[in-house]
Formats: sequence, structure tokens, C-alpha cells
Amino acid sequence: MTVISIPADSLFGIDNLPYGVFSTSDAGPRVGVRVGDSVVDLAKVLGDDIFAQPTLNAFMAEGRDRWIEVRAQITELVSGEIADDAVFSVDDVTMHLPIAVADYVDFYASENHATNLGRLFRPDSAALMPNWKHLPVGYHGRSSTVVVSGTDIVRPCGQRKAPADAAPTFGPSTRLDIEAEMGFIVGVGSPMGSSITPDQFAEHCFGAVILNDWSARDIQAWEYVPLGPNLGKSFATSISAWVVPLLALEAARVDTPVQDPTPLPYLQGEEKWGLDIDLAVEWNGDIVSRPPYAQMYWSPAQMLAHTTVNGAAASTGDLFGSGTISGPEKAQRGAFIELTWGGAEPVEVAGEQRTFIQDGDEVSISATAPGANGGRIGFGEVRGRILPATGDVR
Amino acid sequence: MTVISIPADSLFGIDNLPYGVFSTSDAGPRVGVRVGDSVVDLAKVLGDDIFAQPTLNAFMAEGRDRWIEVRAQITELVSGEIADDAVFSVDDVTMHLPIAVADYVDFYASENHATNLGRLFRPDSAALMPNWKHLPVGYHGRSSTVVVSGTDIVRPCGQRKAPADAAPTFGPSTRLDIEAEMGFIVGVGSPMGSSITPDQFAEHCFGAVILNDWSARDIQAWEYVPLGPNLGKSFATSISAWVVPLLALEAARVDTPVQDPTPLPYLQGEEKWGLDIDLAVEWNGDIVSRPPYAQMYWSPAQMLAHTTVNGAAASTGDLFGSGTISGPEKAQRGAFIELTWGGAEPVEVAGEQRTFIQDGDEVSISATAPGANGGRIGFGEVRGRILPATGDVR
Repeated sequence: MTVISIPADSLFGIDNLPYGVFSTSDAGPRVGVRVGDSVVDLAKVLGDDIFAQPTLNAFMAEGRDRWIEVRAQITELVSGEIADDAVFSVDDVTMHLPIAVADYVDFYASENHATNLGRLFRPDSAALMPNWKHLPVGYHGRSSTVVVSGTDIVRPCGQRKAPADAAPTFGPSTRLDIEAEMGFIVGVGSPMGSSITPDQFAEHCFGAVILNDWSARDIQAWEYVPLGPNLGKSFATSISAWVVPLLALEAARVDTPVQDPTPLPYLQGEEKWGLDIDLAVEWNGDIVSRPPYAQMYWSPAQMLAHTTVNGAAASTGDLFGSGTISGPEKAQRGAFIELTWGGAEPVEVAGEQRTFIQDGDEVSISATAPGANGGRIGFGEVRGRILPATGDVR
Repeated sequence: MTVISIPADSLFGIDNLPYGVFSTSDAGPRVGVRVGDSVVDLAKVLGDDIFAQPTLNAFMAEGRDRWIEVRAQITELVSGEIADDAVFSVDDVTMHLPIAVADYVDFYASENHATNLGRLFRPDSAALMPNWKHLPVGYHGRSSTVVVSGTDIVRPCGQRKAPADAAPTFGPSTRLDIEAEMGFIVGVGSPMGSSITPDQFAEHCFGAVILNDWSARDIQAWEYVPLGPNLGKSFATSISAWVVPLLALEAARVDTPVQDPTPLPYLQGEEKWGLDIDLAVEWNGDIVSRPPYAQMYWSPAQMLAHTTVNGAAASTGDLFGSGTISGPEKAQRGAFIELTWGGAEPVEVAGEQRTFIQDGDEVSISATAPGANGGRIGFGEVRGRILPATGDVR
């Protein structure tokens, strides 16, 4: 039997207890919970086959009462002795995509980011569109290319045309970027024809991850009018391996910034679902930005309410991203196109000048939030390295 | 034993043989093939449990050689005697969504439609965007609200703001519309980091359906800048119940219209994948439009090549829509916003004047194509009735 020791400064104390899917050299993907630097095999310690599956979906679908019950069971278990064969070092396991992704929607909820991108993409128009302060603007992304942290990302090829070019050309993206976001995962869906109010958020949202919405800005700029981003985003979206339960984020809940004009009633609620999460963006080992999630204009509860208010179904495994998190300061911008102002203002990264991402570069985004015990809890990281474009450049 | 008799003028002769998922009063959803006015239970006649499943996905994933083999087996079987308990009248079965939808992408491949919509949505700009003749413009839609023909559609509520309004309001859509499209279904996917060329289309595409991309134009017009349509489309997309195999469409293959400028090499191929499919749009029983698919600028093979050229994965069950099919004539327009020119020119429907869809209205879109035997084959129909908006209008 083993007693799990949790380092005093751990971001994975018993006020966190994130879920993930892991495998070991002798057994395939199944659900685990992270405690300190250990991973506990939940099917083994709880004797419930729902955790023997390669995704969290079946457990997530059981609903909030069950999420509370299991969290209480785990809290009790990890304070005692656990069978040796149910505990692994985080260094000895392989992490997998924790959910089967149903629909993936990405929002655009940072006022600073939307304003910056508006200036860069549409220099001749108003930076913020007239609808932006009335509804959380979002679009559907590609579910099948959501990957877990650590997955290498092949530089995408595509069609692009700079304003000065006579015709579009095809080739590897030359303006490859990140978007530092938080992602939210739906545990309990809602049937077609119904909707979820902002105050029902906690009944439906299972937890949160860090999300990197890789973006090829040259492809995006040429394709996105009038139907929105497609190939410029659809090649890859990375999420962190550990899903922090919404139940662990009680101490992180804050008001959103003042919303003026007052949103329509369907976007209003009594509960506050702003979240005080601090992110850090590391580029080849240097922290280049610290985006503050607390500054996001729209809350995730408002995003889910908006998504379903037309009667669209929500499903277990739906993932929605917040959109790039950018604060008002330059060093708080969550996308490199903003940080380098479209490539005009390079930043120093590990002794070199960088604008967009070069082959071999690695980007890692981490995040922490206040925990219930007065310290902080961690989301781990979402990390990815860029490999050169492959195949025929047709 | 039964011999299936096929009416002489049937659109479901042995040159068609579409697949669907049906249930009967005594047994749940499983795969069948339609022959004349009969449905044949494939698990029973072929003795293969892959057809005992509630979706076509497992069969589709087996690949083109197997699709050819099964089609030959069925052709032979239905010319002989079949066990009585394996044959049902189409009137005695319930049809279900034939596939588990993975990613859903909707294109915009009709030059007439894109030009008309450009004039209506952006009267002060060029109707056709600069990118339109260089790439098949498309966006991701919501997979979880794809439903089978016959499903009632609840009028969506949402946020909208007419240009003259001071502020947006919330309520049931007042400009509810259809988009008459064809949908294409991926049988064999491609892994992340690879791509599918236009000439590899037949190895990957299993078949085609009729698709109605229900659209709330008031919601769409207010929300869609800059990230594209979301709530204006995500409440429902209907597809026909019978999937016509690509193998049945050999006689329908035609050249696309001349593409000028010549597309980039990744969008070129030797094979012709324009399709000579004639659609008919029926509104409360009156045919109001006959959209010609053969006029579509971009072929489905080009759409799939474009979708994957950045290395995005394709999956069994991916569905992509062609975009509204509109010919050059008014009576060939595949959306009511075009047919009534934004509501300015009502059409007579069953003795009443109509602009957009009213509660209780029913829209049915049918389609036929040349078959291998000199006659025509049918796609059946995609039908839906609009129910009044429900719930609190918050």
C-alpha cells in the first residue's frame, strides 16, 4: 500500500483533483486523477468500470450529483493508503485526449483581443464590430483535429494572398501563430429544442482545460470573408491533458468586467462565472506573455447560454473555447500576431528575434487559479512543437 | 419467400440501391437498402452484423472495394427470392439518421447564390468576394443538430437587429429560410497531417444525400461578422434518409462550369466530379424552384481536397454540404431569401403570398439524377415542418 505525499507547493493538492486519461506500459488508456505528482487509477480504487474507458465522456454524462459524490470519494481515498498498483508517477504515464470531442465552438470573448485583431485584419473599419458587446461572437471549429498537449503540430500548407500579390499562392504558412485560451467541456447536454440558462451552467459544464487554437494568419486572412475562419484554424487545436473540475474552481469565481450595454435577458444570471485564472505563455522556454482570464468580457456561462438559446442541442463532450485571452498590456497578449503587432515588432525569444512561429519552436501555455485551501491550483500545460510542412507543396 | 417487384418508373431501381437506417414495430434501427418501394434488411440477407448497427459508419469505414462487393451482392440478391421477414414496405418502416455525423462543413459553391447573397447581405460591397473563385469557401456547422428528413423543426429564437433598430432584440426568427443543397458523406477518412487529392475522391466519399440548411436570416445577418454564421444556422440541418452511393452516380458525372481563373494545382484533377442532379423545392405542396446542381462552380472532390489540404483529419461520418444550389433563373434559386429577393418579392404558395417560412409550413426538397440504365435514380426527399417557437422568449 502507498500513501501519496503531496509537495507543499503543489498545484495539484486535494483542492484540485483534475481528471485525465492515461496509459502505462502494461495497460491502455483509462481514467485517472492527479494528486501531487501521482496519478491514481480510478477504476482500480473505486471499482467502477466507467473509469476503465478511454474517455471521460461516460462519467461526465452522469451529472453533477455524481461528480460531487466521486470527488468526495477521491478526497477521502487519497488521504489514506492506496494499493500500490493503482498509483503511478506522472513521469511514468502517457496522457491521452481526455474526451471524445462532440461539437467544438470557439468564441472571441476578450475585448482587447477583438479590438487588436480588428485593427490588424480590418485597418479601414471600426476595430470592434457593432454586435460584439451584444453577444458572444463564436464559430464552429473542427472537432477531429483537437489533440492532447504534447502532440507535435505539422506546419499547415494552404492558400494565401497578401494584399500586394496579384494572385494567391500555395505553400507552408509563413504566419503561424497561437491563441492562448481556456476551454470548457460540457458534461450533461441538452436536447434539441431546449436551451441552457447562464445560471444552469454548473449543472452542465464538467470542467476546464487550457486550449491553444493554433492559427495560420496568412491562410485565415485570405479565406475568412464572409463565412469565417476555416483552413486557417482547422489543422490543429491542442488542449491540456488534465480536466480541472468546475467544482475545483469555486474560489476562482469573480464578476466579469462591467457589461455595458446590459446584455439581453437570456444572457443575464445571478451567478458569477468570470474566472480568475492566470495564464503564462512560454515560447522556447521564455515566458513572453501572461494573459489574465479575469478580464474576459463574456463568461463561459454566457457562451453556453448563447450557444443553445436557438434550440441547438448540447452534447456530452462538447468543447468550447473562450477565444484568445489578451489583457490591456502588451505583455498580456495571448496571440503572437498581437504581441508582435502583425510581425512589425519582433520579440526576443531565447536570445533570438521572433515574429511568428518557426519550425522546431515549442510553445507551452500554463495556467493557475486560486484553490479552496488558500493556495493555488494548476491546469498543467498545453504544449506543442512545430514540425516542418510535409508532403508535396502542390 | 418474396420476389421484389420494381415499378417501371421507379427512381429506386437496381441502378440506385441507396442505403438507409430503418426500424420496424418489432425491431430497432439497422441498415437497409431501398429497392422499388421495398426496404431490404441487409443484416438478414447478407448475414453480416455490420449491418445490424444503427448507423452506416462501420460499413462505410470498410472502404471502396467492400462498397463495390456489397453492391454486387445486393444486385444479385434482389433479382431472386428473398426471405419474407427481410423485406418491408417503405410505408411500414421508420427511417433514422443514417450516419453518426463527425465533422460537418458547409460550403458556398454556387456562383449565382454567392452573388445573390452578397448583394442582399452586403449591398455596398462587391457581390462576390475576391477569394471566391480561388477556393471553395466553407465553414464548420453544428454536427449534433443534423436530423433526418421528417423531423419537425422548432422555429429558433435569437438575437437580431435590423439596420434601422437602435438596439438588438430577442425573439422568434421572422426571416426563417431554407437552403437547398446536396450533402456528401466521407466513408474513409484521412489521418491528421495528410490530405486527399481531388482524384482520390471516390476512395473516400461513400455517397450523397439531399441537405436542407435551415437558416434564420435575421439572426445570421446580425451575428455573422467577422467569424461567420453560427446561431442563424446551428438550430437544425436536415438530410434525406437514403444515402445514394457514389457508385450509383457514374452516369451523373459531368464537368463543372469552366473555372476561370484556373485553380491552384491542389484543386485540379483528371476526374470530373460535377454532378448532373436536378432538385425540386416544394413549399406547402407547390414546387417553387428547380435548382440545377450541374451549375455548381466547385465540385465535391475539390471541397474535400480543400478541407484536408492543410493536414486536417477527415473522419468516417464527416458530412459536407455544397452550399445553396441556385441557377441563373429566378425559378432555380435554392433559398427563399433569393427567390423573394430579401422578402421584397413574395411568391404564391398554395394560394397564399409567402416571403419567409410561416409556422406550420412544410418544405420538401427532392432530387434525381441520370442512372446507369438510361433512366433516372432518386435521392428521395428531405422534408421538414416548422413548429412555433417554444419556451420563454427571454
